[in-house]
Amino acid sequence: MIENKQKKCRIAVDAMGGDYAPKHEILGALDAFQQDSSFELILVGDKEKILKVARLENLQLNEEMIYHASQVIDMHDKPTEAIKSKQDSSLVVGAKLVREEKADAFVSAGNTGAMMAASTLIMGRIEGVGRPTIGASFPTIKNKFCLLFDVGASVDSKPQHLFEYSILGTIFAKEIFGIESPSVGLLSVGEEESKGNELTFAAYKLLKNSKLNFHGNVEGRDILKGTVDVVLCDGFTGNIVLKFGESIMTLLRTRIRNYADQGIINKLKALVVKSVLKTTLKDMDYQTHGGVPLLGVNGISIIGHGSSSPLAIKNMILRAKEMYEKNLIQKFEDALKTYAVSK
Amino acid sequence: MIENKQKKCRIAVDAMGGDYAPKHEILGALDAFQQDSSFELILVGDKEKILKVARLENLQLNEEMIYHASQVIDMHDKPTEAIKSKQDSSLVVGAKLVREEKADAFVSAGNTGAMMAASTLIMGRIEGVGRPTIGASFPTIKNKFCLLFDVGASVDSKPQHLFEYSILGTIFAKEIFGIESPSVGLLSVGEEESKGNELTFAAYKLLKNSKLNFHGNVEGRDILKGTVDVVLCDGFTGNIVLKFGESIMTLLRTRIRNYADQGIINKLKALVVKSVLKTTLKDMDYQTHGGVPLLGVNGISIIGHGSSSPLAIKNMILRAKEMYEKNLIQKFEDALKTYAVSK
Repeated sequence: MIENKQKKCRIAVDAMGGDYAPKHEILGALDAFQQDSSFELILVGDKEKILKVARLENLQLNEEMIYHASQVIDMHDKPTEAIKSKQDSSLVVGAKLVREEKADAFVSAGNTGAMMAASTLIMGRIEGVGRPTIGASFPTIKNKFCLLFDVGASVDSKPQHLFEYSILGTIFAKEIFGIESPSVGLLSVGEEESKGNELTFAAYKLLKNSKLNFHGNVEGRDILKGTVDVVLCDGFTGNIVLKFGESIMTLLRTRIRNYADQGIINKLKALVVKSVLKTTLKDMDYQTHGGVPLLGVNGISIIGHGSSSPLAIKNMILRAKEMYEKNLIQKFEDALKTYAVSK
Repeated sequence: MIENKQKKCRIAVDAMGGDYAPKHEILGALDAFQQDSSFELILVGDKEKILKVARLENLQLNEEMIYHASQVIDMHDKPTEAIKSKQDSSLVVGAKLVREEKADAFVSAGNTGAMMAASTLIMGRIEGVGRPTIGASFPTIKNKFCLLFDVGASVDSKPQHLFEYSILGTIFAKEIFGIESPSVGLLSVGEEESKGNELTFAAYKLLKNSKLNFHGNVEGRDILKGTVDVVLCDGFTGNIVLKFGESIMTLLRTRIRNYADQGIINKLKALVVKSVLKTTLKDMDYQTHGGVPLLGVNGISIIGHGSSSPLAIKNMILRAKEMYEKNLIQKFEDALKTYAVSK
């Protein structure tokens, strides 16, 4: 399999998606560009608005970087309706650029449901994929990441979908995290094969009979323990674990702030705590990853938090570039064929 | 509804359950007794072994406190098989003491599955309860607890079971946490009624039409945010969230230890961090609660971690006493009738 380094990567960024659009999107994109100018940036959105914000912020924005789209899908729009009724929205236009091979990747911090729907319906699915999936990476005590699939693309994943997630996740962990033979665990309520629900029982069989590096069942505690590299679950459970996980930092910050408010000694101690936690838990900050890739669609699609900071946007863009250069879509396609045959 | 303070509470403690039994069990029970001697302690287990450990540890143990049981169900025993084949095990004997009204509560850090099975089969279920449930309490940024039901008694909870959890949880939050009208949230992948899976859609309807203080859907992040007092989910999801949550402290501790290992300055800073986190996150320590109550069975049953410390055992016993004095079983029974009628 070849790497894709010979051709300059073209990354479309939804300039209108996200709570702080287009400001954070422009800032993040320009930061990415400053760090690594070996890609072509396409800011998709309302040209006037983008230029206005660039002027206000004193940003050196080349007008040719902008691909005009007159509409915006906002957070309250219903995904499938919106991508039909707002054909000239930045979100739909960005996905179309990938389908029409005018861009190699699309990055958006806009309406998550609409981004999933647009990517799936417009870019299409890779052969062998019934349901695209969103993977999130969690920090572990082993100082390597654990990838959890699915964290919300489906709410009613079937055993076969979990099997697909395992293939996509294996390739992603191998290529992006450099793990030779990623181990795969099935999230359940006990380690024994006999523990779980109907979904895990059936998925267990598929995984056990595959050529994947299947470890067996893992429990909730195994994610942060780093027992395996890839953890599989239905999108309902995964979404809850992801959001629960993200709220830990909020709890920590609030508690430390309240502690600091109780006098000068506490304030000084809290400063130490904050600086140590900033170092030791930096990989718990979602901004490190930027966003989550939607795997299984026929193109690179990265979905960010609505509240994405410029740093998050920057990291989403750099991740998209890496996925392109490592030719991930082709590798997913090949792996789906390989593992499907050996099933 | 009357309180149960007039009669001395008799608490049976499984002296042989748990990884450090009977030592931690005896220590914890005696600590509880020292703090509040207004209950009758019944240590269930092998008399010889208990007395031997008491001698070795120099503990003042009254022989009359021991109720002999010759067998032990260990962590590897299959729950339902074990409670049939080991009729004279401390776990079965303890549950029987409650059924036969020789004890008012039973506390065990033994095999969780066996404790659930023994409590359910021997004590029986309260009328109106299809599935007993285990609730766990989570710390929140509001410095009050959030109760999550179910965290593992069932893996395939049905809508009606979630509705039962909501009633049991409401009474528990009201009586134990002193919340006048506990708010109830349904754990899902979005706040809108339209977000979720088949289980949540059906449960939502039952809850919306009830006289409970139903808030609507909540997300994974709402648990630690303290958006509501009681959160409902199926036992599969809840168990994963609980175990994931418990592993956070392990991650924090490991990261801080690794940081401390990098020189003397780091070591000193880490000491500050540890002391601040110990204060600010003390309610994240499972030992504070001790164990989780199994609600819906016809008797007070509290299940502890296998690795329970004496402090955890002590707190389990004191919680059992509180549940007895507040007449919780009767209140559950009444509430199940009230809310079932108004459904």
